[in-house]
Amino acid sequence: MSRITPQSEDFSQWYLDIVKEAELADYSKVKGCMVIKPYGYAIWENMQKDLDRRIKEAGVKNVYFPLFIPESLLQREKDHVEGFAPECAVVTHGGGKELAEKLIVRPTSETIMYDTFSDWIQSYRDLPLLINQWANVVRWEMRTRPFLRTTEFLWQEGHTVHKDKAGADEEAHRALNMYIDFDRESLALPVLTGKKSDKEKFAGALYTLSTEALAKDGRAIQAGTSHNLGTTFAKSFNIQYQSEEGKLEDVWQTSWGVSTRLVGTLIVCHGDDKGLKMPPKIAPIQVVIVPIFRNDEDKTAILDAAKQVVSDLKNFRVEIDNRDGQTPGYKFAQWEVKGVPIRLEIGPRDLENNSCIVARRDTSEKETYELSELFTVIPKLLDEIQDNLYEEALNFQKENTRKVDSYDEFKTVLEEKGGFILAGWCGSEDCEQKIQDETKATIRVIDEEEHIGKCILCGAEAKQRVYFAKAY
Amino acid sequence: MSRITPQSEDFSQWYLDIVKEAELADYSKVKGCMVIKPYGYAIWENMQKDLDRRIKEAGVKNVYFPLFIPESLLQREKDHVEGFAPECAVVTHGGGKELAEKLIVRPTSETIMYDTFSDWIQSYRDLPLLINQWANVVRWEMRTRPFLRTTEFLWQEGHTVHKDKAGADEEAHRALNMYIDFDRESLALPVLTGKKSDKEKFAGALYTLSTEALAKDGRAIQAGTSHNLGTTFAKSFNIQYQSEEGKLEDVWQTSWGVSTRLVGTLIVCHGDDKGLKMPPKIAPIQVVIVPIFRNDEDKTAILDAAKQVVSDLKNFRVEIDNRDGQTPGYKFAQWEVKGVPIRLEIGPRDLENNSCIVARRDTSEKETYELSELFTVIPKLLDEIQDNLYEEALNFQKENTRKVDSYDEFKTVLEEKGGFILAGWCGSEDCEQKIQDETKATIRVIDEEEHIGKCILCGAEAKQRVYFAKAY
Repeated sequence: MSRITPQSEDFSQWYLDIVKEAELADYSKVKGCMVIKPYGYAIWENMQKDLDRRIKEAGVKNVYFPLFIPESLLQREKDHVEGFAPECAVVTHGGGKELAEKLIVRPTSETIMYDTFSDWIQSYRDLPLLINQWANVVRWEMRTRPFLRTTEFLWQEGHTVHKDKAGADEEAHRALNMYIDFDRESLALPVLTGKKSDKEKFAGALYTLSTEALAKDGRAIQAGTSHNLGTTFAKSFNIQYQSEEGKLEDVWQTSWGVSTRLVGTLIVCHGDDKGLKMPPKIAPIQVVIVPIFRNDEDKTAILDAAKQVVSDLKNFRVEIDNRDGQTPGYKFAQWEVKGVPIRLEIGPRDLENNSCIVARRDTSEKETYELSELFTVIPKLLDEIQDNLYEEALNFQKENTRKVDSYDEFKTVLEEKGGFILAGWCGSEDCEQKIQDETKATIRVIDEEEHIGKCILCGAEAKQRVYFAKAY
Repeated sequence: MSRITPQSEDFSQWYLDIVKEAELADYSKVKGCMVIKPYGYAIWENMQKDLDRRIKEAGVKNVYFPLFIPESLLQREKDHVEGFAPECAVVTHGGGKELAEKLIVRPTSETIMYDTFSDWIQSYRDLPLLINQWANVVRWEMRTRPFLRTTEFLWQEGHTVHKDKAGADEEAHRALNMYIDFDRESLALPVLTGKKSDKEKFAGALYTLSTEALAKDGRAIQAGTSHNLGTTFAKSFNIQYQSEEGKLEDVWQTSWGVSTRLVGTLIVCHGDDKGLKMPPKIAPIQVVIVPIFRNDEDKTAILDAAKQVVSDLKNFRVEIDNRDGQTPGYKFAQWEVKGVPIRLEIGPRDLENNSCIVARRDTSEKETYELSELFTVIPKLLDEIQDNLYEEALNFQKENTRKVDSYDEFKTVLEEKGGFILAGWCGSEDCEQKIQDETKATIRVIDEEEHIGKCILCGAEAKQRVYFAKAY
């Protein structure tokens, strides 16, 4: 195992070191695309399983639409194509021949889905239509980093269709709340939420709601988004329904998604200089047992005890690290990099006392417990660790959210401390763009849509109070 | 609901009618690609869940490799590229620019994975490497049919690396046996298994093992394959390991996969003129309850009883069809098309007797049971239906497997009855090709690699006994 660069020395390098040493992902020969390795993929699978349950509980059904989008379909909605065209990968040849129409590898599936929705939806009885898709998407990116920004990534995209604005509003907020709950309960992540500014919203949306986490380097990271698409796509794709009163009406739509970026989010929000800290709920391995022995006789007895622990904890994800040729110290460090929440050490003396050492990854605390009480101790500890990771992240977020009243103060806080900065904004895209050009900070979400104070840049009456941050 | 073409009238049209009326899939604007609708996708999800468990139990870990393969990588292995190049979709532009190197949308992932494996594998300690990927792949097809042959399809591809031939042989057979068990236990499908002829094997493989089901129109359908890739890719991709003795050795590899084609396989193997017959183990809905009422008072009491049944059967997938404005008869027919294994009918008179009618989709039998005994009756019935579907398919396979001794007999049986035909074959690709050209039958699997009788075409001593069939 190589040295991991400390966060304080070079956060970006620390991130890449963790991805490599925790065996999350690898580079590939394809520019900007990563290979997700077993440990990294297991994290994503656990996220999927949890979120898929929440999606299904909301009555949303999974489907699968084609990877390719005919160019003419993508171009049907003006704002949407302007947003995505520069990032597209284009298939021009298939089966040895040049295609009559180019195919775009989906950057998102609104257009390919909604063309079909216009066939599926005729009457108010067909609404709401609630579907979701787990899929890969491709957006050509210039600067990439494993998980955080890759040309190809994995995600889920929910797409729903409603009779009216109220239905779409409700669903956009339901999806947002589902993400907030998932972030808190499973990822142990507190998030800032609210609407995006028009400049930052999804291409083609009426409005975009976002969940924003705070990385340990003080930068914001968008974790999930939910869009009320209004009737924009209904008009472009001719999706109308006959109402109870027999009138032909445009449908209202939403879309919402999270991606493998969440794996990167976990790293930058929970990690420390020793490596990952996996929230127990989605940890691929919740408990690792490291047997410590001097000779073969020790080994047999200790491995037997370890197997008994695995059996006592059969509802949990427990692994025994019985590799030969590695010192216990090396193993400890490796499992710490991988962020396994609890490590059990069982040595000959522990075994004599029918006990073992229980080490927590989050606090580095070690305590001795009897082997026979592990089946009650471990579940409680896992819950404690889950809660503690959330509390730590929440405290960090609170400590790094600051209110400012002037542009000077804004720039000082941004440079010296980072984090979320609450400030007044007049609502003009000019001021928003100028602040971004001068400071690299963007509006993450709108806090209050009310007159509060003054715009930090132009000094006009603030129409909105917003959170700024430098972002991933 | 439209009329379903009887199988005897036009099997192909029957198939398309079922796909449409059971709401499995829809056409899309992209040639050869389908939209998998909620009911069709739920079948695939249940297959995935079951198979993923089997894959993980075998110690195989899930990963994710890039969708795109640089052209030069695909070309690295000669036989492989010859097999797949004519079917490739090619990305030539990304991010608004022409790419320096074309990217192939993966038709299968050997080349992109094995290039990375050469980095991952150094020593015998790194072996075996056992990985799997659930992904979409693209093969440009001229003639497509939903699920059975589509340009884009979903699949799992297992890829394993071993020290020697014995390791690869064992794994190729383990995967085959996993598929056989899965086909039998979950899909209620008996399959013929064995090696493919060299002409039919996977491009680049030493040998290919296959599972072949028999459709109700007497044609074979390849359900899953497992390849021993020998050292072919090890040589092209330079995958070597240092043995215990310190020697540098080529690795041996396998790959194995099944796809969304299995959904089509279920349809053509189990379906009848009324629609699908879903094996209970993977049925999205195992029991549907159709309440029958004359007035609102009936309705409330019957729906309450139905809800109690759902609660009694909470470990099963049960749905209540409480749609207004549809007659019970219409509902019965619709759930029959969808192949739901058990239908419960609860009417006012049933409720008076605290009973209901239980109708089996497989046998069309109806029986009356007390509501309070359903929680023991239904699980038993579901098992019976699962077994019965397997027995029916097995009998059909046995009745339609015939041994012939001459080419005339071969042609007569093939034309008049179809099915699997066991015949002698000299082993020459000339005879194999000529038989295919003249009769459209191909060798599905090799039965015995021994001298048995004579080649049905050339009359030479048969080197092998093989199963021929017309195939999907």
